[in-house]
Amino acid sequence: MSVQSILIRAKEASPSLAAASTDAKNAALARIAQLLLDNSNAIVSANAIDLKRGKENGLSQGLLDRLKLDEVRIQGLARSIEEIIALPDPVGVSVQGKTLPNGISLQQVKVPFGVIGCIYEARPNVTVDIAALALKSGNAAVLRGGSAAEKTNEVLVSLIQRGLKESSLPESGVATVDEFGRDGATEMMQARGLIDVLIPRGSAALIQSVVQNSKVPVIETGDGIVHMFLDESADLDMALPLVINSKTHRPSVCNSLETLLVHASAAERLLPAIGKALVEAGVKLHGCEISRKYIEAEPATDETWKTEYLSLELSVRVVDDLDAALEHIAKFSTQHTESIVTGDLANAERFLASVDSAAVMVNTSTRFTDGGEFGFGAEVGISTQKLHARGPMGLSELTSTKWLIRGNGQVRS
Amino acid sequence: MSVQSILIRAKEASPSLAAASTDAKNAALARIAQLLLDNSNAIVSANAIDLKRGKENGLSQGLLDRLKLDEVRIQGLARSIEEIIALPDPVGVSVQGKTLPNGISLQQVKVPFGVIGCIYEARPNVTVDIAALALKSGNAAVLRGGSAAEKTNEVLVSLIQRGLKESSLPESGVATVDEFGRDGATEMMQARGLIDVLIPRGSAALIQSVVQNSKVPVIETGDGIVHMFLDESADLDMALPLVINSKTHRPSVCNSLETLLVHASAAERLLPAIGKALVEAGVKLHGCEISRKYIEAEPATDETWKTEYLSLELSVRVVDDLDAALEHIAKFSTQHTESIVTGDLANAERFLASVDSAAVMVNTSTRFTDGGEFGFGAEVGISTQKLHARGPMGLSELTSTKWLIRGNGQVRS
Repeated sequence: MSVQSILIRAKEASPSLAAASTDAKNAALARIAQLLLDNSNAIVSANAIDLKRGKENGLSQGLLDRLKLDEVRIQGLARSIEEIIALPDPVGVSVQGKTLPNGISLQQVKVPFGVIGCIYEARPNVTVDIAALALKSGNAAVLRGGSAAEKTNEVLVSLIQRGLKESSLPESGVATVDEFGRDGATEMMQARGLIDVLIPRGSAALIQSVVQNSKVPVIETGDGIVHMFLDESADLDMALPLVINSKTHRPSVCNSLETLLVHASAAERLLPAIGKALVEAGVKLHGCEISRKYIEAEPATDETWKTEYLSLELSVRVVDDLDAALEHIAKFSTQHTESIVTGDLANAERFLASVDSAAVMVNTSTRFTDGGEFGFGAEVGISTQKLHARGPMGLSELTSTKWLIRGNGQVRS
Repeated sequence: MSVQSILIRAKEASPSLAAASTDAKNAALARIAQLLLDNSNAIVSANAIDLKRGKENGLSQGLLDRLKLDEVRIQGLARSIEEIIALPDPVGVSVQGKTLPNGISLQQVKVPFGVIGCIYEARPNVTVDIAALALKSGNAAVLRGGSAAEKTNEVLVSLIQRGLKESSLPESGVATVDEFGRDGATEMMQARGLIDVLIPRGSAALIQSVVQNSKVPVIETGDGIVHMFLDESADLDMALPLVINSKTHRPSVCNSLETLLVHASAAERLLPAIGKALVEAGVKLHGCEISRKYIEAEPATDETWKTEYLSLELSVRVVDDLDAALEHIAKFSTQHTESIVTGDLANAERFLASVDSAAVMVNTSTRFTDGGEFGFGAEVGISTQKLHARGPMGLSELTSTKWLIRGNGQVRS
């Protein structure tokens, strides 16, 4: 089968998925979760082949770890499907409505997009996550999961398809184009009319490549050069745990802190203790000249402020005041998350109003920009674009809308 | 100045516009409306140059009519600005919010996109419309209005900029790149990071060119191959005025009817009278073989069902039943607007659920898919895409959102 015919079959399956009842979709999801558990041996065997090839190809330890599926992680996948089953179905939810003076009734309701495409890398958990989220929101899904996880994804997709079929939903509603290698991704990016929205997940390079080359509408996710600004009035007892939590709680994810900005008048008071605590937590610091008077840090370079470490490293810069902090953020932020630590209400409100990011925070760890923490219950990704969805995306963000218009013969005059 | 520097200046102006109060924006809009009225002679003179060149270049009468601005039309432009002043300001409107169990307050608010780009053709009214809508929603606007209206747009943009300046708002917040010809449009389509969203307005060819070539997120508008299906149970007294109104009320716009589908069992009952009324209204018909037994029509070709006439022509096809109508619509619709005329409730609801278009109607003229009719009060365009906005767009659709997150030292555990 060609990529084109896989896409056409997914498109053809999408009306049945869009029309499926919540019960029917939940039953299929439950069946898929059970099939994953029942076939964990087959999944682990396929995964072993991918892992072996990964090692031979010199994949980093971090990538190998993301690639790996064992019994416990498969149970985690099944559990995450159960969580998706428990979420409310967004399809059919009324967004707004009214009756016009001429008697026409207008109702805007949420409807599935149709076909969601996902291009990602070496993370077999995304295969299950995206398929389950797409299914719950009434969408078909076409996946390109990268060659490193090809064997694992093949087994996972075939189990998902079996689950659909056994639940009387169209098995072609979830498909992979992994067998076509990079051509699969290229054809997906060209597939206007067959794929309704494309979600890239993975490295900044992968996301940028999709954003630059796709003719299909894209939802851009990830990529967080996240800033925290310690204002002149910041309290050390509040600032220290916020910095440590934002940087070290889970450094590999997009909402972790990458650049700490400190008001010049507070540097001497705040930086020595915070620098010490960071170093003790294993964080390597890159500091501007002034900051290095107070902390143990490598000298910052021109690249420092543009770097998303995703590891235990942090950029530190002393700035003159709130204006200078806002200017730095406007220049270097990826518009994901920025937080101010302050005791000054006017500065807090000015920061909230001025910073143009998906999430703007006062006195809070940057790690809170998260669908789970927001109570969305499922992790579709964190949009860093302004169109359609911005910030943590829930199931609702996997839907479009349509207007239902009911009349009894009205014409326009 | 280069295109790039115009775009950078617009981007730099955008935070001031985003922060401007409703009163400040309305005052600037009122000043612009007054300047248009006060300088109508200069506008008409510039327009005369464009019209003369248009005639020399053999522009069609329709295009010349769209291009033309006279005293009365300039008063209309000023009035449309007054209407935009009267609309509520979408910026800062709270979309949703809650307090998390840990005490963090979440609030999602509407914020301007930043810079809106618009690429359009030979319609100077769009220059004023888009600039005013962008301004009211706190956005900067960069316009490429086509060479045919270049002189007119130059005067209009300079008046708008003067209005901004005289109202203490940044004059570079509205700009044109018309002087750069096609290169202006090309550079706009590449300007990721400088333009936040691009709205093409004009012919299907122009819109497709932007959609295919833009690296900036696009909102696709227009292009309506609009269908009406007369079901077996359709009442002639209701169906006839609905067909006539949908086709003839304003044939040049995207929500006008292009294809009439008729249930085979109702063709003999409905088509003779409806065909006669259409012909009497000056509509040229293109019919399938069966329909031509009942109406005066040219034989339909393979192209007929793919044609958006935007004039007094109509495609007519007799179909076996509702399923065949749905199949025809799924194949040929541009997902703008489709309407069913029926007395059967189950068929009405099935049509509403099955048709995947921005507006799906029962017993209503297709002309009602319109921001004005919906009560949005301003015509940004009608989105035919599924991302961000679908159907008639109001000022609200010219905004994105951001999350404001307020805490008092919360960290994630």
